[in-house]
Amino acid sequence: MSLLVVGSIAFDAVKTPFGERERMLGGSAVHFSLAASFFSGVRVLGPVGDDFGDEEYAVLHERGVNTEDVERAGGDTFFWRGHYDYDLNTAQTDETRLGVFGDFEPKLSDASRAAEMVFLGNIQPDLQREVREQCGDARLVALDSMNLWIETARDALVAAIAGVEVVLMNDAEIRMLTEEPNRVRSARAIMGMGPRVVISKQGEYGAALYAGDEFFALPAYPLETVNDPTGAGDSFAGGFLGYLASQGEGAGEDEGSLRRAMTYGSVMASFCVEEFGTERVRRLTREQIDERFADFQRMTALDAVPAG
Amino acid sequence: MSLLVVGSIAFDAVKTPFGERERMLGGSAVHFSLAASFFSGVRVLGPVGDDFGDEEYAVLHERGVNTEDVERAGGDTFFWRGHYDYDLNTAQTDETRLGVFGDFEPKLSDASRAAEMVFLGNIQPDLQREVREQCGDARLVALDSMNLWIETARDALVAAIAGVEVVLMNDAEIRMLTEEPNRVRSARAIMGMGPRVVISKQGEYGAALYAGDEFFALPAYPLETVNDPTGAGDSFAGGFLGYLASQGEGAGEDEGSLRRAMTYGSVMASFCVEEFGTERVRRLTREQIDERFADFQRMTALDAVPAG
Repeated sequence: MSLLVVGSIAFDAVKTPFGERERMLGGSAVHFSLAASFFSGVRVLGPVGDDFGDEEYAVLHERGVNTEDVERAGGDTFFWRGHYDYDLNTAQTDETRLGVFGDFEPKLSDASRAAEMVFLGNIQPDLQREVREQCGDARLVALDSMNLWIETARDALVAAIAGVEVVLMNDAEIRMLTEEPNRVRSARAIMGMGPRVVISKQGEYGAALYAGDEFFALPAYPLETVNDPTGAGDSFAGGFLGYLASQGEGAGEDEGSLRRAMTYGSVMASFCVEEFGTERVRRLTREQIDERFADFQRMTALDAVPAG
Repeated sequence: MSLLVVGSIAFDAVKTPFGERERMLGGSAVHFSLAASFFSGVRVLGPVGDDFGDEEYAVLHERGVNTEDVERAGGDTFFWRGHYDYDLNTAQTDETRLGVFGDFEPKLSDASRAAEMVFLGNIQPDLQREVREQCGDARLVALDSMNLWIETARDALVAAIAGVEVVLMNDAEIRMLTEEPNRVRSARAIMGMGPRVVISKQGEYGAALYAGDEFFALPAYPLETVNDPTGAGDSFAGGFLGYLASQGEGAGEDEGSLRRAMTYGSVMASFCVEEFGTERVRRLTREQIDERFADFQRMTALDAVPAG
């Protein structure tokens, strides 16, 4: 099933207690598409500047990502500088230079419009809604967002959410948007806006899925080494939607496929954070992904109580 | 297998966004023993004052809890007043009157000394160590603690931990004690002090178990109504150890029994928080417990990827 991601393509400067990088490829569309590429073909739509060169394209092409809809404009690629303290759950933004991302208006090619599955990365919610409206054939559209849009464009975000099937957001942001501290009620409140599925990302505590009355939760993979959490959420989304896209018709409609998609999402997020930026995912193999999937099965297995 | 709990017996005054109670039975030994009583006989050792009457004893006796080692002293029973804001994860203490608990020195009867399984509720760590040393026959001793003792009696706490098989503590307190922000490394650091099993309580995110190289995690039960989180951790411990005590020889040594114990712990914590104090657990039936256990199995089931 054809898969499209619309989001940021960026250069990131990141410092964590375990190291730093001055300039590396990042952005939601990049992390998503690399993760999804292990499961499905994926087309990426996002803006880059004059400073985005062959080396950067190569990272995407190595994984077979379709970059025909990457829009090159005069100016600089979006640049983000941030750091994390020992509490790796929260990114501290030190510098943002929007560059070409500031004027981004997604222009969808015919191939993009025909996508059957779409991930709307964290961009301005009106743009998310416009993209969704242009993708008339899409069977399943998922959306991420952030506190900035909840604070500055709440109505637009609610309108964008109304048009998608799946919302993937941070736990705290789901509560902030719905003004409901109880996590079950907050997920239901999002479903009340339109989506059928809500995925609450809980950082080092994993992720939970709400779909109608169904609930499923997975812990994060227990890693002794987490170097850089940047991109974990988008890698999760890439594993989640990439797996569903690989399953064809009906994927994402049954509980089993949603749970396996959650697990592949958790697997991809866990690899992402092991090293900086895209370093670990670039070296990843499908075999390593499947091994970690099996680890998740073992880690969560709960047998029935023995009789007697 | 005989089960003993040593800890506080208290009157609690609690206010949450959903209601308040001016004086209700509480304390770690109470919440633990009520939860454990659904699985196993349990003997409680803790101090009470002159104000602890038939009505309070009745709550324990209704559930068959053995109170022969409850120590009555002149003075008032331990009193705690606290409140929770919409973030129900953190209790705010408004008032503490230690009363008879301030001079508590556990005096173990022969029956207590003979306990095969012991829970050392959150009391001064030197007392925990002394109790553990007196229980020479105990096959499995578990301990809880809190930030107060990490700050004021760290060496004593480390010495107490060295003598037990299982540590159950809040996630944040495990990190605080070990000064290790990574949750896997922090659990290993506790194991390095002596215990074979570390259980990290994560509030609304559930709980994780570390035993050697094994890892298991369960989400918290998805509740739309949480009225009062007081006692959740002790109820968890009661379900966990109560189940293991019911399994006889070898319980807690295999991964399967530990995982089922984690699940019963999560079940008991989830009932505890639905209402104030001991209200919900007093009305609970074993059938309701088993239904919720089955819910946990359904909520966490992860099938293999279909072949092909």
